[in-house]
Amino acid sequence: MTGSAVDIALAYHRAWTGHDFERAMTYVAEDIVCEAPAGRLEGAEAFRGFMGPFTRILTRSDLIASFGDDRIALLMYDTETLPVASAPAAECLTVQNGKITHLRIIFDRAPFDAARTAP
Amino acid sequence: MTGSAVDIALAYHRAWTGHDFERAMTYVAEDIVCEAPAGRLEGAEAFRGFMGPFTRILTRSDLIASFGDDRIALLMYDTETLPVASAPAAECLTVQNGKITHLRIIFDRAPFDAARTAP
Repeated sequence: MTGSAVDIALAYHRAWTGHDFERAMTYVAEDIVCEAPAGRLEGAEAFRGFMGPFTRILTRSDLIASFGDDRIALLMYDTETLPVASAPAAECLTVQNGKITHLRIIFDRAPFDAARTAP
Repeated sequence: MTGSAVDIALAYHRAWTGHDFERAMTYVAEDIVCEAPAGRLEGAEAFRGFMGPFTRILTRSDLIASFGDDRIALLMYDTETLPVASAPAAECLTVQNGKITHLRIIFDRAPFDAARTAP
C-alpha cells in the first residue's frame, strides 16, 4: 500500500465515518499505539475496542481540515452522535508502510460524561 | 503582515506558550470567532477572557504537529498546566490579512472538571 500519510489517514477516516469499520481497521497496524483522552491503548484489538463502539453511535460527520506529509497526518472533524449533537475531534496519525502505527486523538469527554449521567 | 496561515498560527502559538499573551493577541482579529468546547465566543475581548486565564496556568507546552495552507492552519500540541499534567489540544485557525479570524479549539474538559471538584 502506498500513498502519503494524509491519503491513508483519509482512507481510514472515510471508512469508519462511512460505517465500514472493518475496512477502516485494514489501515491500522497490528502494533498501533493510540493516545486517547482516557489513556494509552496498545495494539489493534485494544484500538478496535475503543473506536468500534464509537462508530456505532455515529450519525453524521464532517471533515473540517486535513493536512500532512509523508509520515504524519493531522485531521480535524466534527461528529454527530446519538448522545452528543456536536463532538468535534482531532487526530494526529503516524503512517508507516501504509498502516497507521500511532494515533493521538483529542476530543472533549465532558458532553459524553454529561449524557451518561443525565436523568 | 504577510505569511501563510501556518506562519501566523505558529507566531500566535509561540507567543502565548511563551507567556507573552499580549503579543499573541496582536495576531488575533478584532472580530475573531472562536469555537471552544464550552461554546462560541465572538470578538477579541471574549477570546482574551477565554485564552488569557489559560496561559496563566500553563507551565509547559510541546508542539506535536502543525500544517496548513495560505488560509487555514491546523495545530496539535500538548500542554502541562497547574491543575492538569497533560492537556493536549488541537486548533484549526483561519487567517485573513495576517490575523486569525476564526479559531476552533478542541481539548478535553474532563480532567479540568475533575481537578476543580477534587478535594
